[in-house]
Amino acid sequence: MLKNDLLLRAAKNQTVERTPVWMMRQAGRILPEYRAVRAKMGDFISLVKTPEFACEVTIQPVDILGVDAAIIFSDILVIPEAMGLPYKMIESKGPWFEKTVETKEDLNSIHIAHLPNYQYVIDAIKLTKKELNNRVPLIGFAGAPFTILAYMVEGSGSKTFSKAKKWMFTQNQEAHQLLELITLSTINYLKDQIKAGADMVQLFDSWAGILSPQHYQEFAMFYIQKICLAIKAEFPDVPITVFAKGAFFARENMGNLSCDVIGLDWNMDIKESRKLIGKNKALQGNLDPCVLYSDDKTIIEETEKMLKEFGPVGHIANLGHGIYPDIEKEKAKLFIETVKNFKHTL
Amino acid sequence: MLKNDLLLRAAKNQTVERTPVWMMRQAGRILPEYRAVRAKMGDFISLVKTPEFACEVTIQPVDILGVDAAIIFSDILVIPEAMGLPYKMIESKGPWFEKTVETKEDLNSIHIAHLPNYQYVIDAIKLTKKELNNRVPLIGFAGAPFTILAYMVEGSGSKTFSKAKKWMFTQNQEAHQLLELITLSTINYLKDQIKAGADMVQLFDSWAGILSPQHYQEFAMFYIQKICLAIKAEFPDVPITVFAKGAFFARENMGNLSCDVIGLDWNMDIKESRKLIGKNKALQGNLDPCVLYSDDKTIIEETEKMLKEFGPVGHIANLGHGIYPDIEKEKAKLFIETVKNFKHTL
Repeated sequence: MLKNDLLLRAAKNQTVERTPVWMMRQAGRILPEYRAVRAKMGDFISLVKTPEFACEVTIQPVDILGVDAAIIFSDILVIPEAMGLPYKMIESKGPWFEKTVETKEDLNSIHIAHLPNYQYVIDAIKLTKKELNNRVPLIGFAGAPFTILAYMVEGSGSKTFSKAKKWMFTQNQEAHQLLELITLSTINYLKDQIKAGADMVQLFDSWAGILSPQHYQEFAMFYIQKICLAIKAEFPDVPITVFAKGAFFARENMGNLSCDVIGLDWNMDIKESRKLIGKNKALQGNLDPCVLYSDDKTIIEETEKMLKEFGPVGHIANLGHGIYPDIEKEKAKLFIETVKNFKHTL
Repeated sequence: MLKNDLLLRAAKNQTVERTPVWMMRQAGRILPEYRAVRAKMGDFISLVKTPEFACEVTIQPVDILGVDAAIIFSDILVIPEAMGLPYKMIESKGPWFEKTVETKEDLNSIHIAHLPNYQYVIDAIKLTKKELNNRVPLIGFAGAPFTILAYMVEGSGSKTFSKAKKWMFTQNQEAHQLLELITLSTINYLKDQIKAGADMVQLFDSWAGILSPQHYQEFAMFYIQKICLAIKAEFPDVPITVFAKGAFFARENMGNLSCDVIGLDWNMDIKESRKLIGKNKALQGNLDPCVLYSDDKTIIEETEKMLKEFGPVGHIANLGHGIYPDIEKEKAKLFIETVKNFKHTL
C-alpha cells in the first residue's frame, strides 16, 4: 500500500487532505545531485539506459524536494528507437536521428515496439518501485503519437516541424499508417510500464500546438483516445494524464477522452479550462515555469493564487511545462512547500 | 488614388467586391526572383539596408503572385539596432546580438529610436511607394514591444526565451523602462513609415504565446495599446493590424484595442475568434502555412473553407503565419488565385 496516494486520489477527483504536487522534469539538471550522476555517466542516453542510475535520479526529487510523486527518468524518444530508429542527443542542440521515415520502404523497415525493445525502462521501473518502497506513486510516461511522428519524420527538433507536417499532409495514408504503428507500440509500452509497477501514466503531446484544430483531431486526438481505451480496458484503475502543450483549442474535446487528468500549460486560463473540459476530469498544472526565477514572495503569491483558482478537488499542482534547467533548487523547493502548506478555505 | 484599395476597405469592415489577400513573408525565399537579388547582395541585412533592393523585392510578389498588398521588405530587428543594439543574421540560425540589455548601464546606453536611425527603411518605403505607382497599398510594420524586448534581452532566438522572461520577472522596473523605450521608438518609427507613404501598419508580436495571460496584459497589451492610440491620434484613417501569434487567451481583450484588424494564427478557430474579438474589428488570416505543401485540390478546398468561415465582410485573407521558405511558388500562387476567384454566396 502506498504511504502517500494523494496523487492517485486527486487524479480520480476524490477528496484529498491537501493538493498533491510534482514537477515535470523534476528529475534533472536543477539538482546538483543529478548533475553528479550525469557527470559519472557521460551522456544522457546512457543514463536513460542504465536502470540503476535512472532509478537513482528518479528518486532524488522525492528525497530532496519532497514531491508527492516520482516520474521515471526516461525520454519520449525511447519509442522511436524501440521501433527501429535510434537517436543521438546532441548537447545543447537536442535529439538527432540518423535515419528518418519518408518512403514506404522506411515504413516497412520499422516495427511495432514490444519487449524486450524497451527492456531497460521496464527494469528501471521495477527497480525504482522497489527502492521507493511505496513512499509515493511512480508515474510512467510516453510521447503521444503525433509528437513521436514529428520526431521520426523531421529527424530532429524544429520550431515549425514543417518537414513532418508536409509529409503528413502529402502522404496522408502513410502518416496514418505510421501513427497506427506508434499507437500500438505505445500501448505495449505503457501496459508493460504498468505491469512493472507504474501507478499512473502520462502522455506528453509536446508539439500539439503546431497543428490546426482540425488536424489535431485527425492526427493526434484519435490516436490518444485509442491508447486511453486500450489501457483502460486492461487497467481500469490506473489513472491516465494527457498533456497536450499548446492545444488550447482541443480542450472541449479533451473532456471526452477516456483519461482521468488533463494537463494545462501556463497559457491556459484555469477557470475557462475547467468549464471547457468539464468536471469529470482532474486538471494538472499550470504555474508559468518562469515564475520560479522570481523572488520568494512572488513565487508564494503566484503559487497560492493558482491553488485558489483550481480549488481543493481534482487538482494536481505542477508547472505548466517542464522546469527549466537553470532554476535554483531552493526555488523549486519553495514551490513544492508552498503547495504542501496551503490550506483551502472552504 | 489607389487603384486597388480592397485591403484598406476590408480593414475598415467596409463592403468589398471580393476578399483581399496577401501573405506574411511574401517577399522572400519562395520567389526565385528574390533569391537572385539576395545572391547579388550576399546577406539579408545588407538587403534590408539597401532601399533599391528592398524596394525591388517588396514589389516582386505584387507582380509575380498578384497579391492585393505589398509589405515593405524589412525586419522587426531594425528597432533594436536603431536603439543602439546592432545584430547579425546568422544563416540557418537566426539573429544574434553582440550586446544585450541586462544591467541599468545597458539600459542607459540605449536610446529612443528616431530619424535618421532607421532612415534606410523610410527611404525604401518612399521609393517603393513611387515604384508601386498606386497599384496596391503598401503595408509598413514593426515588432510589438514584448517581442522586441525578448530579443534585446535574450540576445538571439530561443524556444522559451527564458533568459528574457527571467529578466522581466526579476527586474520588473527595468523591464517596464525598456518596454517604454521600445514603445516610444516604435511610435516614432511607424509614424515615419506612414509619413513616407505606408497605407497601413502591422504590429507583429511573434513571441506573444510564451507569456501567461496575466503577464501578456502587463508586459505586452498595455504597450500595444499605447502604440495604437499614438498612431490613431495623428493618423486616424490609417488602419492598424495587431498580430499576436499564440495569444489565443488575449482575443477577448484584443477586441478593445484601438486598432482595426486582428491577425489570427492557424490554431485559432475562426468563429470562436469572431465571437471573442467582436464585430468591430476586421480579422486577418489564417490558413495553416503547411496546407501549401498539399496537392492543388486540398489547397483550393481548404482556402475556400476558410473564406466561407470568415464570411464576406471584415476579412483579409492571409496565412496563419509567415509562408515557409520551401513552399513552391506555384502553390502560393494557387492560394492567392483561389481567394481572388472566390465568390461568397449571399
